[in-house]
Amino acid sequence: MSELRSCETPSVIRKPYLLFLGDAQDQLAAKTACGVAQWRPEWCVGQFRLPGCRADVGLDDITLDHGMQLGAATLVIGVANRGGIVPAHWIDDFLQALDYGYDIANGLHQRLSDIPEIAHAANSKGRLLFDVRHPARAFQVGTGKKRSGRRVLTVGTDCSVGKMYTALALEKEMHRRGIKADFRATGQTGILIAGSGICIDAVVADFVSGAVEDLSPANEDDHWDIIEGQGSLFHASYAGVSLALLHGAQPDALVLCHEPTRRHMRGLPHFPLPDLACCLEANLTAARLTNPAVRCVGVSINTSGLEARAAARLLDEATRQMGVPATDPLREGVSVIVDQLGGLFESGRMAISPNGRSTAA
Amino acid sequence: MSELRSCETPSVIRKPYLLFLGDAQDQLAAKTACGVAQWRPEWCVGQFRLPGCRADVGLDDITLDHGMQLGAATLVIGVANRGGIVPAHWIDDFLQALDYGYDIANGLHQRLSDIPEIAHAANSKGRLLFDVRHPARAFQVGTGKKRSGRRVLTVGTDCSVGKMYTALALEKEMHRRGIKADFRATGQTGILIAGSGICIDAVVADFVSGAVEDLSPANEDDHWDIIEGQGSLFHASYAGVSLALLHGAQPDALVLCHEPTRRHMRGLPHFPLPDLACCLEANLTAARLTNPAVRCVGVSINTSGLEARAAARLLDEATRQMGVPATDPLREGVSVIVDQLGGLFESGRMAISPNGRSTAA
Repeated sequence: MSELRSCETPSVIRKPYLLFLGDAQDQLAAKTACGVAQWRPEWCVGQFRLPGCRADVGLDDITLDHGMQLGAATLVIGVANRGGIVPAHWIDDFLQALDYGYDIANGLHQRLSDIPEIAHAANSKGRLLFDVRHPARAFQVGTGKKRSGRRVLTVGTDCSVGKMYTALALEKEMHRRGIKADFRATGQTGILIAGSGICIDAVVADFVSGAVEDLSPANEDDHWDIIEGQGSLFHASYAGVSLALLHGAQPDALVLCHEPTRRHMRGLPHFPLPDLACCLEANLTAARLTNPAVRCVGVSINTSGLEARAAARLLDEATRQMGVPATDPLREGVSVIVDQLGGLFESGRMAISPNGRSTAA
Repeated sequence: MSELRSCETPSVIRKPYLLFLGDAQDQLAAKTACGVAQWRPEWCVGQFRLPGCRADVGLDDITLDHGMQLGAATLVIGVANRGGIVPAHWIDDFLQALDYGYDIANGLHQRLSDIPEIAHAANSKGRLLFDVRHPARAFQVGTGKKRSGRRVLTVGTDCSVGKMYTALALEKEMHRRGIKADFRATGQTGILIAGSGICIDAVVADFVSGAVEDLSPANEDDHWDIIEGQGSLFHASYAGVSLALLHGAQPDALVLCHEPTRRHMRGLPHFPLPDLACCLEANLTAARLTNPAVRCVGVSINTSGLEARAAARLLDEATRQMGVPATDPLREGVSVIVDQLGGLFESGRMAISPNGRSTAA
């Protein structure tokens, strides 16, 4: 069984947040804070930066003290650095934050609870430490038993192709339409954005599908869980995680995510990217084990590396090739995908083409 | 990264063994000890049983003291019980064993190193504790980079269908023929039989394929690693483990293992077993990601639940259906499979049928 840690900790991070950017050397280092500020601006009272910080997520610069006055409950470490280690010169600020009354949520690899002075201060003051990369409790083995409620999972041709972004865009659009939907986070940035979740690749291998069943429990019949995918069935390092996630999620619908300028699988220069249709087929085939009715409702392509006309051509081509709408969530939104999702459960089942893809509404 | 534990511990368990059967309530409870006694009789000085023990692996009953005189180096806990917990009434014997000079190797879920009096005694006396279900060190992420040497992996239609048994039978037959070969263990019983290995389903999900790369490193061109498979691509609880193992192993050859009387997937009454051909095809397709030249060299069927003539018919039928030899390792041995393996690298590549299966020699 995976390690049982801090099992007393509630699983939901308290809001609102003060985003800690530290002395991030560039905007990319503050990617996690950017994600939180972009998707949950209503939860963020401001950003807290140290001298020399070169990142800016566009929020007011405020102090720990000021953040408290604005009602902040949690200091969110939204900055990554080489090795995922907490630098020694951040510790005084964290101790001060605990002193003020903040909980701390940490997206770095190193656990705050492994830093004795921070663990001690949090314990003695009754503050919570959320080391979101490390599952805080044990999980059961997956059962594959059908659960009520509806589920859509974002899958990818590779790592880092927009699976979290697409899931969050789907949630936003579904909420706009008044559809009951929850983003279910499976990675550290997603967890800080959702306020809860499970860092699925840090779970002991035997329990990954069970952890996903736990993350997305039975729900109302018309409720959608939008589950953040991880990795790719075609990534030689992480495919096992992706498959366990697929089986645990029991998705009714898949959205295939892709980054067209990627030249090889992330971190593996000797592996080319899979073809879109082949990648989708592999995901559908595998997903049918726990949900034979699964189908694809859309393709999400990050076209930020392309000019507008090239992007439009690519999306048209993918729509024709795949038989489902292809869109760039940032350029065109995900309305066309949500239309498909709606169609899945309204007025009976949609027609399904022989390869298991849903036909356009 | 997975937890780093007892990194000073050598990875190979010292031989010979004294097998501890405790007060096992039946023969099945001593399955691990049976496996060790069957496959490594030359490493076993005897069995050590407590009053009331109803299991017998066929070795002499000896005391801890006598075992020491016979040169035993490690007491092997070869008995499982409900929950995998060390019963309190075993602890005195283990303390005595440490006192005598034994290391202890433990196939139970509970770690001996988590039992303070045992951990303390081992430390103070300089004895080693091998909690084989728990990886003793951290692993890297898998790279998918091709390694020298040859590899055969046993895969299955389900859990517990003979993947370890088949791998050990292959090793034995290959050694008999003078072929360089090593059994590579991925589960607790296999590790006690091999004297080393990695309990792959206990590794943190992100690192499973990397752990398998570590377990089966580059080797001489004519050396075979015979890697013990785990789970099944068609088991909703564990398929992620099986896929990561498949990718990390980069097998040149697969042997498909099956138990024909199984009515449903182990532990999942709502899941039927996959068809043999469909299961093989899924394994070959997935395995091609890290070794496009992979092929199937045989089917291993546990026919112990069938009469001799029914078994023979079934094996004939499977041989015809699958286009590779089907055998029961216990009834008929694995000679026909080793013949196929030999053919893979001798006199050029074998002919491959369009579905990627090797044709019979």
